[in-house]
Amino acid sequence: MDDLIFGRNAVMELLKSGRSVNRIFIAEGSRDGSIQKIFSLAKTAGIVVEFTSRDKLDKICGGRHQGVAARAAAVNYSTVEEILELAESKSELPFIILLDELEDPQNFGAILRTAEAVGVHGVIIPKRRSVQLNATVFKTSAGAAEYVKVAQVVNVAQTLKNLRGLGLKIIGSDVSAEIDFKQADLTGGIVLIIGSEGKGMRRLTRENCDLLIKIPMVGKINSLNASAAAAVLMYEILFQRQ
Amino acid sequence: MDDLIFGRNAVMELLKSGRSVNRIFIAEGSRDGSIQKIFSLAKTAGIVVEFTSRDKLDKICGGRHQGVAARAAAVNYSTVEEILELAESKSELPFIILLDELEDPQNFGAILRTAEAVGVHGVIIPKRRSVQLNATVFKTSAGAAEYVKVAQVVNVAQTLKNLRGLGLKIIGSDVSAEIDFKQADLTGGIVLIIGSEGKGMRRLTRENCDLLIKIPMVGKINSLNASAAAAVLMYEILFQRQ
Repeated sequence: MDDLIFGRNAVMELLKSGRSVNRIFIAEGSRDGSIQKIFSLAKTAGIVVEFTSRDKLDKICGGRHQGVAARAAAVNYSTVEEILELAESKSELPFIILLDELEDPQNFGAILRTAEAVGVHGVIIPKRRSVQLNATVFKTSAGAAEYVKVAQVVNVAQTLKNLRGLGLKIIGSDVSAEIDFKQADLTGGIVLIIGSEGKGMRRLTRENCDLLIKIPMVGKINSLNASAAAAVLMYEILFQRQ
Repeated sequence: MDDLIFGRNAVMELLKSGRSVNRIFIAEGSRDGSIQKIFSLAKTAGIVVEFTSRDKLDKICGGRHQGVAARAAAVNYSTVEEILELAESKSELPFIILLDELEDPQNFGAILRTAEAVGVHGVIIPKRRSVQLNATVFKTSAGAAEYVKVAQVVNVAQTLKNLRGLGLKIIGSDVSAEIDFKQADLTGGIVLIIGSEGKGMRRLTRENCDLLIKIPMVGKINSLNASAAAAVLMYEILFQRQ
């Protein structure tokens, strides 16, 4: 199965990533700078470019494609071992995100984008009841989904036990936690868990945390958007590591 | 004109906010806890509740409604003066967000949600070429759009000049800025500008900034999702103010 990728940034990053691209679609009449650049990159790489009506592109993508889409070889998920090896190869302590039954592809994409920006070694998702890598995720990630390793696991609790056994600190973000993230020690090898949009972390996931932290809120609403919360925490971790 | 609000959190916050609600729609067969709570809140407030098929609700909302929607009296935009008065009434230095031609309602909603959480006094948007308050914004904001003042202005550059004249510091977030946000002095009365998803800040907006800050990135991607970037910066401002 091929993957469909659309949006200018996403297609541009796809072309730069070296991943195998089967075909590029460009909407007739799209002529501005980034489309021209995509066209010439595709030509240089010997990729077939198909000019198509905007209507047909709307149908293929079912979303805001900004005049360009691509079909690429299917996503290769990574493994947790490959994520750990990446950290080791860079002589860095592992910095891993675990998304516990996240539902929204836009949140997943935005989290991958921030994860790439802060140097996360990989993102772990459950194989079931979780958003998976798809076209919307690629689009929202602005291409970061091409660079960040994503591993699917069948059993989150067991994965967390294994990672703790390797010396990683398991940190959960929870609105009812007592410790503000600014007060927490977020150095060392870390797994940061982001819960689902509606329900937060599952009980079993929470029980496998070494530390629960919260993001303080001074208003009436008691939780942030998952990708906003993830960004605030990932940047704090980046700063504490530096 | 009425506003359409959908999603459980959004409708719940609407009911709590005291805003005038004309009608609640509940999908037949939706019976879980939060729907029951919405039903009884609506009944207590004397609001008409209409049970409707899930198909009809899909059509009304055109999005993920989670089984519930509401029609409420149209949004009242605030004014910049009202935002400043709110800060004064709380004896706080103004903390204002300006969204410079933001396009995506999901980003707008997520930014309002974080803004509410960090105690922002109001959000300013341009009257033209900007996403406005709509049902998707309310839904994504998880109800925060009920609480945060939003002002529309015709002329962003003039608004910034006026606010600077009142002693506020105009701070723009820009990927090409030289100063990391952690190194910047973000205390005092502040207007934080978030640029559009594709193009960042407009030239005229940038020229009206007192300070340009960037969020450091260690990967290959050179920008964050607008709402993720906004969250990171808003939390830094919250911490520096405390």
